[in-house]
Amino acid sequence: MTLDLSHEIELTPAFHDLDPMVVVWHGHYFKYFELARCALLQRFDYDFPQMHASGYHWPIVDLRAKYLRSAHYQQKLKVRARITEWEHRLRIDYQIRDAETALLLTRAHTIQVAVSVATGEMCYASPAVLLARLGLPTS
Amino acid sequence: MTLDLSHEIELTPAFHDLDPMVVVWHGHYFKYFELARCALLQRFDYDFPQMHASGYHWPIVDLRAKYLRSAHYQQKLKVRARITEWEHRLRIDYQIRDAETALLLTRAHTIQVAVSVATGEMCYASPAVLLARLGLPTS
Amino acid sequence: MTLDLSHEIELTPAFHDLDPMVVVWHGHYFKYFELARCALLQRFDYDFPQMHASGYHWPIVDLRAKYLRSAHYQQKLKVRARITEWEHRLRIDYQIRDAETALLLTRAHTIQVAVSVATGEMCYASPAVLLARLGLPTS
Amino acid sequence: MTLDLSHEIELTPAFHDLDPMVVVWHGHYFKYFELARCALLQRFDYDFPQMHASGYHWPIVDLRAKYLRSAHYQQKLKVRARITEWEHRLRIDYQIRDAETALLLTRAHTIQVAVSVATGEMCYASPAVLLARLGLPTS
Repeated sequence: MTLDLSHEIELTPAFHDLDPMVVVWHGHYFKYFELARCALLQRFDYDFPQMHASGYHWPIVDLRAKYLRSAHYQQKLKVRARITEWEHRLRIDYQIRDAETALLLTRAHTIQVAVSVATGEMCYASPAVLLARLGLPTS
Repeated sequence: MTLDLSHEIELTPAFHDLDPMVVVWHGHYFKYFELARCALLQRFDYDFPQMHASGYHWPIVDLRAKYLRSAHYQQKLKVRARITEWEHRLRIDYQIRDAETALLLTRAHTIQVAVSVATGEMCYASPAVLLARLGLPTS
Repeated sequence: MTLDLSHEIELTPAFHDLDPMVVVWHGHYFKYFELARCALLQRFDYDFPQMHASGYHWPIVDLRAKYLRSAHYQQKLKVRARITEWEHRLRIDYQIRDAETALLLTRAHTIQVAVSVATGEMCYASPAVLLARLGLPTS
Repeated sequence: MTLDLSHEIELTPAFHDLDPMVVVWHGHYFKYFELARCALLQRFDYDFPQMHASGYHWPIVDLRAKYLRSAHYQQKLKVRARITEWEHRLRIDYQIRDAETALLLTRAHTIQVAVSVATGEMCYASPAVLLARLGLPTS
Protein backbone atom coordinates (compact mmCIF):
# COMPACT_ATOMS: atom_id res chain seq x y z
CA MET A 1 0.00 0.00 0.00
CA THR A 2 1.34 3.38 -0.96
CA LEU A 3 0.63 6.34 1.21
CA ASP A 4 -0.93 9.21 -0.69
CA LEU A 5 0.32 12.41 0.87
CA SER A 6 -0.69 14.72 -1.96
CA HIS A 7 -3.65 16.84 -2.90
CA GLU A 8 -4.61 18.89 -5.94
CA ILE A 9 -6.79 21.96 -6.23
CA GLU A 10 -7.95 23.94 -9.23
CA LEU A 11 -7.91 27.70 -9.41
CA THR A 12 -7.81 30.53 -11.91
CA PRO A 13 -5.82 33.72 -11.30
CA ALA A 14 -7.90 36.70 -10.22
CA PHE A 15 -7.68 40.15 -11.77
CA HIS A 16 -6.17 41.52 -8.54
CA ASP A 17 -3.28 39.04 -8.86
CA LEU A 18 -2.13 40.52 -12.18
CA ASP A 19 0.76 42.95 -12.53
CA PRO A 20 1.41 45.52 -15.28
CA MET A 21 2.76 42.74 -17.54
CA VAL A 22 -0.74 41.20 -17.23
CA VAL A 23 0.66 38.05 -15.60
CA VAL A 24 0.44 36.90 -11.99
CA TRP A 25 2.90 38.82 -9.76
CA HIS A 26 5.52 36.39 -8.41
CA GLY A 27 4.64 36.97 -4.74
CA HIS A 28 0.99 35.97 -5.21
CA TYR A 29 1.95 32.37 -5.98
CA PHE A 30 2.52 31.85 -2.25
CA LYS A 31 -1.23 32.31 -1.82
CA TYR A 32 -1.83 29.59 -4.40
CA PHE A 33 0.65 27.25 -2.68
CA GLU A 34 -1.02 27.98 0.64
CA LEU A 35 -4.49 27.16 -0.69
CA ALA A 36 -3.18 23.77 -1.87
CA ARG A 37 -1.23 23.19 1.35
CA CYS A 38 -4.22 23.97 3.58
CA ALA A 39 -6.53 21.76 1.49
CA LEU A 40 -3.97 18.94 1.81
CA LEU A 41 -3.60 19.40 5.57
CA GLN A 42 -7.38 19.55 6.01
CA ARG A 43 -7.57 16.06 4.55
CA PHE A 44 -5.49 14.93 7.53
CA ASP A 45 -7.44 17.12 9.95
CA TYR A 46 -4.26 19.06 10.71
CA ASP A 47 -4.70 22.53 9.26
CA PHE A 48 -3.96 25.79 11.09
CA PRO A 49 -6.74 25.58 13.76
CA GLN A 50 -5.95 21.92 14.56
CA MET A 51 -2.21 22.66 14.67
CA HIS A 52 -2.85 25.38 17.22
CA ALA A 53 -5.17 23.13 19.23
CA SER A 54 -2.44 20.45 19.26
CA GLY A 55 -0.03 22.89 20.91
CA TYR A 56 2.10 23.79 17.89
CA HIS A 57 2.57 26.50 15.32
CA TRP A 58 4.21 25.43 12.09
CA PRO A 59 5.89 28.56 10.66
CA ILE A 60 7.49 28.42 7.24
CA VAL A 61 11.26 28.67 7.66
CA ASP A 62 12.44 28.07 4.10
CA LEU A 63 10.87 28.25 0.68
CA ARG A 64 11.89 28.15 -2.93
CA ALA A 65 10.04 28.71 -6.18
CA LYS A 66 11.03 28.33 -9.82
CA TYR A 67 8.90 30.08 -12.41
CA LEU A 68 9.08 28.39 -15.80
CA ARG A 69 6.10 30.04 -17.47
CA SER A 70 3.84 32.91 -16.48
CA ALA A 71 0.26 32.36 -15.33
CA HIS A 72 -2.44 34.42 -17.05
CA TYR A 73 -5.86 35.79 -16.25
CA GLN A 74 -8.57 33.14 -16.27
CA GLN A 75 -6.08 30.37 -17.09
CA LYS A 76 -7.29 27.16 -15.46
CA LEU A 77 -4.52 25.90 -13.19
CA LYS A 78 -3.96 22.78 -11.15
CA VAL A 79 -1.91 23.22 -8.01
CA ARG A 80 -0.58 20.01 -6.52
CA ALA A 81 0.90 19.87 -3.00
CA ARG A 82 2.73 16.79 -1.77
CA ILE A 83 4.32 16.09 1.62
CA THR A 84 7.88 14.89 0.98
CA GLU A 85 9.46 15.12 4.46
CA TRP A 86 7.91 14.83 7.90
CA GLU A 87 10.38 13.39 10.42
CA HIS A 88 12.20 16.54 11.49
CA ARG A 89 10.33 19.13 9.55
CA LEU A 90 7.37 19.29 7.21
CA ARG A 91 8.42 19.72 3.60
CA ILE A 92 5.74 20.20 0.97
CA ASP A 93 6.49 20.25 -2.76
CA TYR A 94 4.25 22.10 -5.23
CA GLN A 95 3.63 21.99 -8.93
CA ILE A 96 1.41 24.35 -10.85
CA ARG A 97 0.27 23.11 -14.24
CA ASP A 98 -2.06 24.35 -16.93
CA ALA A 99 -5.24 22.37 -16.35
CA GLU A 100 -5.80 21.68 -20.05
CA THR A 101 -2.33 21.04 -21.44
CA ALA A 102 -0.67 19.82 -18.19
CA LEU A 103 2.24 22.12 -19.06
CA LEU A 104 4.35 22.82 -15.97
CA LEU A 105 4.35 26.50 -14.95
CA THR A 106 5.86 26.60 -11.47
CA ARG A 107 7.74 24.32 -9.08
CA ALA A 108 8.20 25.19 -5.42
CA HIS A 109 8.63 23.84 -1.94
CA THR A 110 8.09 25.10 1.59
CA ILE A 111 9.63 23.85 4.83
CA GLN A 112 7.85 24.24 8.15
CA VAL A 113 9.03 23.38 11.63
CA ALA A 114 6.99 22.81 14.76
CA VAL A 115 7.19 25.50 17.42
CA SER A 116 5.60 24.94 20.83
CA VAL A 117 2.79 27.40 21.46
CA ALA A 118 3.49 27.14 25.21
CA THR A 119 7.26 27.76 25.21
CA GLY A 120 7.89 29.30 21.80
CA GLU A 121 10.68 26.77 21.30
CA MET A 122 11.41 25.08 18.01
CA CYS A 123 11.14 21.28 17.93
CA TYR A 124 14.08 19.42 16.39
CA ALA A 125 11.88 16.44 15.58
CA SER A 126 8.29 16.55 14.41
CA PRO A 127 5.86 16.05 17.31
CA ALA A 128 4.01 12.72 17.38
CA VAL A 129 0.71 14.42 16.54
CA LEU A 130 1.87 15.16 12.98
CA LEU A 131 2.80 11.54 12.26
CA ALA A 132 -0.42 10.30 13.88
CA ARG A 133 -2.52 12.62 11.72
CA LEU A 134 -0.67 11.60 8.56
CA GLY A 135 -1.23 7.93 9.46
CA LEU A 136 2.52 7.28 9.73
CA PRO A 137 4.21 5.06 12.35
CA THR A 138 5.60 7.11 15.24
CA SER A 139 8.62 4.87 15.63
CA MET B 1 37.76 51.06 -6.45
CA THR B 2 35.00 48.76 -5.31
CA LEU B 3 31.69 48.85 -7.03
CA ASP B 4 28.79 49.33 -4.64
CA LEU B 5 25.85 47.41 -6.02
CA SER B 6 23.77 47.43 -2.85
CA HIS B 7 21.08 49.55 -1.29
CA GLU B 8 19.27 49.57 2.03
CA ILE B 9 15.81 50.74 2.94
CA GLU B 10 14.03 50.98 6.26
CA LEU B 11 10.46 49.84 6.83
CA THR B 12 8.15 48.68 9.58
CA PRO B 13 5.56 45.94 9.03
CA ALA B 14 2.02 47.20 8.57
CA PHE B 15 -1.01 45.83 10.41
CA HIS B 16 -2.35 44.34 7.17
CA ASP B 17 0.84 42.26 6.82
CA LEU B 18 0.20 40.39 10.09
CA ASP B 19 -1.27 36.91 10.29
CA PRO B 20 -3.18 35.28 13.17
CA MET B 21 0.15 34.55 14.91
CA VAL B 22 0.64 38.36 14.95
CA VAL B 23 3.79 38.09 12.82
CA VAL B 24 4.31 38.99 9.17
CA TRP B 25 2.85 36.34 6.83
CA HIS B 26 5.67 34.68 4.89
CA GLY B 27 4.39 35.72 1.47
CA HIS B 28 4.42 39.43 2.33
CA TYR B 29 8.22 39.48 2.57
CA PHE B 30 8.34 39.46 -1.24
CA LYS B 31 6.83 42.93 -1.09
CA TYR B 32 9.62 44.03 1.24
CA PHE B 33 12.29 42.51 -1.03
CA GLU B 34 10.68 44.23 -4.00
CA LEU B 35 10.71 47.63 -2.29
CA ALA B 36 14.44 47.23 -1.66
CA ARG B 37 15.09 45.87 -5.17
CA CYS B 38 13.23 48.72 -6.86
CA ALA B 39 15.00 51.33 -4.72
CA LEU B 40 18.33 49.74 -5.68
CA LEU B 41 17.49 49.64 -9.38
CA GLN B 42 16.26 53.24 -9.30
CA ARG B 43 19.74 54.27 -8.19
CA PHE B 44 20.97 52.91 -11.53
CA ASP B 45 18.00 54.39 -13.40
CA TYR B 46 16.92 50.89 -14.40
CA ASP B 47 13.69 50.16 -12.54
CA PHE B 48 10.51 48.72 -14.10
CA PRO B 49 9.61 51.70 -16.37
CA GLN B 50 13.21 52.08 -17.65
CA MET B 51 13.49 48.33 -18.19
CA HIS B 52 10.39 48.42 -20.34
CA ALA B 53 11.62 51.49 -22.23
CA SER B 54 14.91 49.65 -22.91
CA GLY B 55 13.02 46.83 -24.62
CA TYR B 56 13.13 44.23 -21.84
CA HIS B 57 11.02 42.74 -19.10
CA TRP B 58 12.93 41.14 -16.25
CA PRO B 59 10.61 38.52 -14.77
CA ILE B 60 11.65 36.68 -11.63
CA VAL B 61 12.37 33.07 -12.54
CA ASP B 62 13.75 31.74 -9.26
CA LEU B 63 13.62 32.83 -5.65
CA ARG B 64 14.50 31.51 -2.25
CA ALA B 65 13.91 32.78 1.26
CA LYS B 66 15.04 31.58 4.69
CA TYR B 67 13.14 32.83 7.70
CA LEU B 68 15.28 32.80 10.84
CA ARG B 69 13.13 35.00 13.08
CA SER B 70 9.64 36.45 12.71
CA ALA B 71 9.06 40.12 12.02
CA HIS B 72 6.60 41.94 14.29
CA TYR B 73 4.27 44.89 14.13
CA GLN B 74 6.06 48.22 14.23
CA GLN B 75 9.48 46.55 14.42
CA LYS B 76 11.99 48.78 12.64
CA LEU B 77 13.63 46.74 9.90
CA LYS B 78 16.47 47.30 7.49
CA VAL B 79 16.17 45.53 4.16
CA ARG B 80 19.38 45.34 2.16
CA ALA B 81 19.43 44.33 -1.51
CA ARG B 82 22.69 43.59 -3.30
CA ILE B 83 23.33 42.63 -6.93
CA THR B 84 25.52 39.52 -6.92
CA GLU B 85 25.23 38.29 -10.55
CA TRP B 86 24.63 40.22 -13.74
CA GLU B 87 26.32 38.54 -16.71
CA HIS B 88 23.68 36.01 -17.70
CA ARG B 89 20.95 36.85 -15.27
CA LEU B 90 20.32 39.38 -12.54
CA ARG B 91 20.69 37.89 -9.09
CA ILE B 92 19.88 40.02 -6.07
CA ASP B 93 20.53 38.93 -2.49
CA TYR B 94 18.52 40.27 0.44
CA GLN B 95 18.97 40.51 4.18
CA ILE B 96 16.36 41.78 6.61
CA ARG B 97 17.72 42.85 9.99
CA ASP B 98 16.27 44.44 13.09
CA ALA B 99 17.25 48.10 12.75
CA GLU B 100 18.26 48.44 16.39
CA THR B 101 19.99 45.16 17.22
CA ALA B 102 21.14 44.26 13.67
CA LEU B 103 19.88 40.75 14.35
CA LEU B 104 19.33 38.87 11.08
CA LEU B 105 15.69 37.92 10.47
CA THR B 106 15.51 36.81 6.84
CA ARG B 107 17.86 35.93 3.98
CA ALA B 108 16.67 35.60 0.41
CA HIS B 109 17.58 35.95 -3.22
CA THR B 110 15.75 36.47 -6.48
CA ILE B 111 16.92 35.69 -10.02
CA GLN B 112 15.59 37.61 -13.00
CA VAL B 113 16.27 37.10 -16.69
CA ALA B 114 15.82 39.52 -19.54
CA VAL B 115 12.95 38.85 -21.92
CA SER B 116 12.61 40.88 -25.10
CA VAL B 117 9.41 42.93 -25.10
CA ALA B 118 9.34 42.72 -28.92
CA THR B 119 9.76 38.96 -29.37
CA GLY B 120 8.91 37.54 -25.93
CA GLU B 121 12.15 35.57 -26.09
CA MET B 122 14.42 35.01 -23.12
CA CYS B 123 17.97 36.35 -23.40
CA TYR B 124 20.75 33.92 -22.51
CA ALA B 125 23.11 36.78 -21.69
CA SER B 126 22.18 40.05 -20.02
CA PRO B 127 21.61 42.79 -22.60
CA ALA B 128 24.27 45.52 -22.76
CA VAL B 129 21.89 48.08 -21.29
CA LEU B 130 21.99 46.39 -17.87
CA LEU B 131 25.79 46.47 -17.67
CA ALA B 132 25.87 50.05 -18.94
CA ARG B 133 23.39 51.18 -16.28
CA LEU B 134 25.32 49.37 -13.55
CA GLY B 135 28.54 51.03 -14.72
CA LEU B 136 30.13 47.70 -15.59
CA PRO B 137 32.33 47.00 -18.61
CA THR B 138 30.36 45.40 -21.45
CA SER B 139 33.27 43.21 -22.49
CA MET C 1 -39.72 38.55 -18.57
CA THR C 2 -37.39 39.64 -15.82
CA LEU C 3 -33.80 40.28 -16.62
CA ASP C 4 -31.43 38.44 -14.32
CA LEU C 5 -28.37 40.65 -13.86
CA SER C 6 -26.96 38.85 -10.83
CA HIS C 7 -24.51 36.07 -10.14
CA GLU C 8 -23.42 34.21 -7.04
CA ILE C 9 -20.13 32.52 -6.23
CA GLU C 10 -19.02 30.46 -3.26
CA LEU C 11 -15.73 30.92 -1.50
CA THR C 12 -14.08 30.32 1.86
CA PRO C 13 -11.60 32.79 3.36
CA ALA C 14 -7.97 31.77 3.01
CA PHE C 15 -5.46 31.78 5.86
CA HIS C 16 -3.57 34.67 4.23
CA ASP C 17 -6.74 36.80 4.42
CA LEU C 18 -6.88 36.62 8.23
CA ASP C 19 -5.66 39.37 10.53
CA PRO C 20 -4.48 39.12 14.15
CA MET C 21 -8.12 39.01 15.31
CA VAL C 22 -8.38 35.79 13.23
CA VAL C 23 -11.05 37.33 10.99
CA VAL C 24 -10.80 38.52 7.39
CA TRP C 25 -9.06 41.92 7.17
CA HIS C 26 -11.55 44.51 5.87
CA GLY C 27 -9.53 45.36 2.75
CA HIS C 28 -9.53 41.77 1.50
CA TYR C 29 -13.28 41.83 0.92
CA PHE C 30 -12.65 43.86 -2.23
CA LYS C 31 -11.02 40.75 -3.66
CA TYR C 32 -14.15 38.75 -2.86
CA PHE C 33 -16.39 41.40 -4.45
CA GLU C 34 -14.12 41.42 -7.50
CA LEU C 35 -14.30 37.63 -7.89
CA ALA C 36 -18.11 37.86 -7.90
CA ARG C 37 -18.11 40.90 -10.20
CA CYS C 38 -15.78 39.27 -12.74
CA ALA C 39 -17.79 36.03 -12.70
CA LEU C 40 -20.95 38.07 -13.32
CA LEU C 41 -19.38 40.07 -16.15
CA GLN C 42 -18.00 36.90 -17.73
CA ARG C 43 -21.57 35.65 -18.06
CA PHE C 44 -22.19 38.62 -20.34
CA ASP C 45 -18.84 38.19 -22.09
CA TYR C 46 -17.77 41.61 -20.85
CA ASP C 47 -15.01 41.06 -18.30
CA PHE C 48 -11.70 42.93 -18.18
CA PRO C 49 -10.20 41.54 -21.45
CA GLN C 50 -13.42 42.11 -23.42
CA MET C 51 -13.82 45.60 -21.94
CA HIS C 52 -10.34 46.48 -23.15
CA ALA C 53 -11.00 44.94 -26.57
CA SER C 54 -14.19 47.05 -26.82
CA GLY C 55 -12.15 50.23 -26.34
CA TYR C 56 -12.98 50.98 -22.71
CA HIS C 57 -11.55 50.68 -19.24
CA TRP C 58 -14.08 50.63 -16.42
CA PRO C 59 -12.23 51.92 -13.34
CA ILE C 60 -13.99 51.89 -10.00
CA VAL C 61 -14.73 55.49 -8.98
CA ASP C 62 -16.81 54.94 -5.85
CA LEU C 63 -17.34 52.09 -3.42
CA ARG C 64 -18.94 51.47 -0.10
CA ALA C 65 -18.99 48.50 2.27
CA LYS C 66 -20.84 47.78 5.49
CA TYR C 67 -19.53 45.02 7.69
CA LEU C 68 -22.24 43.51 9.89
CA ARG C 69 -20.45 40.34 10.99
CA SER C 70 -16.87 39.12 10.61
CA ALA C 71 -15.94 36.33 8.22
CA HIS C 72 -13.90 33.45 9.61
CA TYR C 73 -11.41 30.91 8.38
CA GLN C 74 -13.01 28.14 6.36
CA GLN C 75 -16.47 29.65 6.71
CA LYS C 76 -18.43 28.85 3.56
CA LEU C 77 -19.61 32.11 2.06
CA LYS C 78 -21.88 33.05 -0.80
CA VAL C 79 -21.02 36.30 -2.55
CA ARG C 80 -23.78 37.69 -4.74
CA ALA C 81 -23.16 40.51 -7.23
CA ARG C 82 -26.04 42.27 -8.98
CA ILE C 83 -26.01 45.03 -11.58
CA THR C 84 -28.33 47.79 -10.37
CA GLU C 85 -27.41 50.73 -12.66
CA TRP C 86 -26.08 50.74 -16.19
CA GLU C 87 -27.24 53.84 -18.08
CA HIS C 88 -24.62 56.36 -17.04
CA ARG C 89 -22.37 54.20 -14.94
CA LEU C 90 -22.14 50.58 -13.89
CA ARG C 91 -23.28 50.03 -10.33
CA ILE C 92 -22.95 46.59 -8.81
CA ASP C 93 -24.36 45.67 -5.40
CA TYR C 94 -22.91 42.86 -3.30
CA GLN C 95 -24.06 40.71 -0.43
CA ILE C 96 -21.93 38.20 1.43
CA ARG C 97 -23.86 35.58 3.37
CA ASP C 98 -22.97 32.52 5.38
CA ALA C 99 -23.64 29.65 2.96
CA GLU C 100 -25.33 27.50 5.60
CA THR C 101 -27.37 29.93 7.67
CA ALA C 102 -27.86 32.64 4.98
CA LEU C 103 -26.95 35.19 7.66
CA LEU C 104 -25.89 38.47 6.08
CA LEU C 105 -22.26 39.40 6.78
CA THR C 106 -21.45 42.24 4.40
CA ARG C 107 -23.20 44.63 2.04
CA ALA C 108 -21.37 46.73 -0.49
CA HIS C 109 -21.50 48.39 -3.86
CA THR C 110 -19.05 49.60 -6.46
CA ILE C 111 -19.52 52.18 -9.20
CA GLN C 112 -17.53 52.05 -12.41
CA VAL C 113 -17.48 54.46 -15.31
CA ALA C 114 -16.33 53.89 -18.86
CA VAL C 115 -13.09 55.55 -19.90
CA SER C 116 -12.01 55.50 -23.52
CA VAL C 117 -8.74 53.58 -23.98
CA ALA C 118 -7.94 55.77 -26.99
CA THR C 119 -8.47 59.21 -25.46
CA GLY C 120 -8.41 58.56 -21.72
CA GLU C 121 -11.67 60.49 -21.45
CA MET C 122 -14.52 59.54 -19.18
CA CYS C 123 -17.87 58.76 -20.80
CA TYR C 124 -20.91 60.49 -19.33
CA ALA C 125 -23.21 57.78 -20.64
CA SER C 126 -22.44 54.07 -20.80
CA PRO C 127 -21.22 53.07 -24.27
CA ALA C 128 -23.62 50.99 -26.37
CA VAL C 129 -21.41 47.92 -26.04
CA LEU C 130 -22.29 47.55 -22.33
CA LEU C 131 -26.05 47.59 -22.98
CA ALA C 132 -25.66 45.23 -25.92
CA ARG C 133 -23.71 42.73 -23.84
CA LEU C 134 -26.23 42.92 -21.02
CA GLY C 135 -29.05 42.31 -23.50
CA LEU C 136 -30.62 45.69 -22.77
CA PRO C 137 -32.22 48.02 -25.33
CA THR C 138 -29.84 50.79 -26.44
CA SER C 139 -32.57 53.37 -26.67
CA MET D 1 -7.21 76.16 21.28
CA THR D 2 -8.07 73.88 18.42
CA LEU D 3 -7.57 70.18 18.80
CA ASP D 4 -5.48 68.68 16.02
CA LEU D 5 -6.81 65.20 15.38
CA SER D 6 -5.14 64.68 12.02
CA HIS D 7 -1.90 63.23 10.71
CA GLU D 8 -0.26 63.02 7.32
CA ILE D 9 2.13 60.46 5.90
CA GLU D 10 3.99 60.30 2.60
CA LEU D 11 4.20 57.20 0.46
CA THR D 12 4.74 56.15 -3.12
CA PRO D 13 2.86 53.23 -4.70
CA ALA D 14 4.86 50.03 -4.97
CA PHE D 15 5.15 47.93 -8.13
CA HIS D 16 3.12 45.15 -6.49
CA ASP D 17 0.20 47.58 -6.00
CA LEU D 18 -0.19 48.15 -9.75
CA ASP D 19 -2.79 46.45 -11.90
CA PRO D 20 -2.74 45.76 -15.66
CA MET D 21 -3.78 49.38 -16.31
CA VAL D 22 -0.49 50.33 -14.56
CA VAL D 23 -2.36 52.21 -11.83
CA VAL D 24 -2.94 51.25 -8.20
CA TRP D 25 -5.67 48.59 -7.86
CA HIS D 26 -8.64 50.09 -5.98
CA GLY D 27 -8.48 47.62 -3.09
CA HIS D 28 -4.89 48.50 -2.23
CA TYR D 29 -5.87 52.01 -1.13
CA PHE D 30 -7.20 50.51 2.10
CA LYS D 31 -3.60 49.68 2.95
CA TYR D 32 -2.65 53.33 2.39
CA PHE D 33 -5.55 54.53 4.54
CA GLU D 34 -4.54 52.06 7.23
CA LEU D 35 -0.94 53.26 7.26
CA ALA D 36 -2.18 56.83 7.81
CA ARG D 37 -4.76 55.73 10.39
CA CYS D 38 -2.23 53.71 12.41
CA ALA D 39 0.32 56.56 12.31
CA LEU D 40 -2.41 58.92 13.56
CA LEU D 41 -3.50 56.56 16.34
CA GLN D 42 0.13 55.99 17.38
CA ARG D 43 0.39 59.71 18.06
CA PHE D 44 -2.30 59.21 20.70
CA ASP D 45 -0.75 55.97 21.91
CA TYR D 46 -3.89 54.10 20.90
CA ASP D 47 -2.95 51.89 17.96
CA PHE D 48 -3.86 48.21 17.58
CA PRO D 49 -1.69 46.82 20.46
CA GLN D 50 -2.83 49.55 22.89
CA MET D 51 -6.47 49.07 21.85
CA HIS D 52 -6.19 45.39 22.65
CA ALA D 53 -4.43 46.11 25.96
CA SER D 54 -7.28 48.51 26.86
CA GLY D 55 -9.82 45.72 26.45
CA TYR D 56 -11.26 46.67 23.06
CA HIS D 57 -11.05 45.77 19.41
CA TRP D 58 -12.09 48.46 16.97
CA PRO D 59 -13.24 46.66 13.83
CA ILE D 60 -14.15 48.67 10.75
CA VAL D 61 -17.91 48.45 10.23
CA ASP D 62 -18.40 50.91 7.38
CA LEU D 63 -16.17 52.48 4.77
CA ARG D 64 -16.45 54.52 1.64
CA ALA D 65 -13.98 55.68 -0.97
CA LYS D 66 -14.24 57.97 -3.97
CA TYR D 67 -11.54 57.74 -6.61
CA LEU D 68 -11.14 60.97 -8.55
CA ARG D 69 -7.79 60.30 -10.21
CA SER D 70 -5.60 57.20 -10.46
CA ALA D 71 -2.36 56.86 -8.52
CA HIS D 72 0.74 55.88 -10.48
CA TYR D 73 4.01 54.11 -9.87
CA GLN D 74 6.50 56.20 -7.94
CA GLN D 75 4.08 59.11 -7.66
CA LYS D 76 4.75 60.90 -4.38
CA LEU D 77 1.53 60.93 -2.39
CA LYS D 78 0.39 62.54 0.84
CA VAL D 79 -2.22 60.61 2.78
CA ARG D 80 -4.00 62.61 5.46
CA ALA D 81 -6.17 60.95 8.13
CA ARG D 82 -8.37 63.02 10.43
CA ILE D 83 -10.64 61.93 13.27
CA THR D 84 -14.07 63.47 12.68
CA GLU D 85 -16.31 61.52 15.12
CA TRP D 86 -15.49 59.86 18.41
CA GLU D 87 -18.48 59.88 20.74
CA HIS D 88 -20.31 56.77 19.62
CA ARG D 89 -17.95 55.48 17.01
CA LEU D 90 -14.58 56.41 15.58
CA ARG D 91 -14.85 58.01 12.17
CA ILE D 92 -11.69 58.85 10.28
CA ASP D 93 -11.66 60.80 7.02
CA TYR D 94 -8.88 60.44 4.45
CA GLN D 95 -7.55 62.46 1.57
CA ILE D 96 -4.83 61.34 -0.81
CA ARG D 97 -3.13 64.12 -2.73
CA ASP D 98 -0.25 64.35 -5.14
CA ALA D 99 2.64 65.57 -2.99
CA GLU D 100 3.88 68.05 -5.57
CA THR D 101 0.72 69.53 -7.07
CA ALA D 102 -1.61 68.94 -4.07
CA LEU D 103 -4.17 67.62 -6.58
CA LEU D 104 -6.81 65.51 -4.82
CA LEU D 105 -6.79 61.85 -5.92
CA THR D 106 -8.94 60.02 -3.40
CA ARG D 107 -11.39 60.78 -0.59
CA ALA D 108 -12.53 58.16 1.89
CA HIS D 109 -13.71 57.47 5.39
CA THR D 110 -13.81 54.51 7.73
CA ILE D 111 -16.04 53.95 10.76
CA GLN D 112 -14.92 51.76 13.64
CA VAL D 113 -16.82 50.71 16.73
CA ALA D 114 -15.47 49.42 20.02
CA VAL D 115 -16.03 45.76 20.77
CA SER D 116 -15.20 44.36 24.19
CA VAL D 117 -12.41 41.75 23.98
CA ALA D 118 -13.87 40.04 27.07
CA THR D 119 -17.51 39.72 26.00
CA GLY D 120 -17.38 40.25 22.23
CA GLU D 121 -20.14 42.82 22.61
CA MET D 122 -20.31 46.03 20.65
CA CYS D 123 -20.26 49.28 22.64
CA TYR D 124 -22.94 51.83 21.77
CA ALA D 125 -20.80 54.66 23.12
CA SER D 126 -17.03 54.98 22.79
CA PRO D 127 -15.28 53.75 25.94
CA ALA D 128 -13.66 56.42 28.12
CA VAL D 129 -10.17 55.23 27.17
CA LEU D 130 -10.58 56.58 23.62
CA LEU D 131 -11.54 60.05 24.75
CA ALA D 132 -8.79 60.06 27.38
CA ARG D 133 -6.17 59.13 24.79
CA LEU D 134 -7.41 61.77 22.37
CA GLY D 135 -7.26 64.37 25.14
CA LEU D 136 -11.01 64.98 24.99
CA PRO D 137 -13.32 65.58 27.97
CA THR D 138 -15.14 62.40 29.03
CA SER D 139 -18.32 64.24 29.93
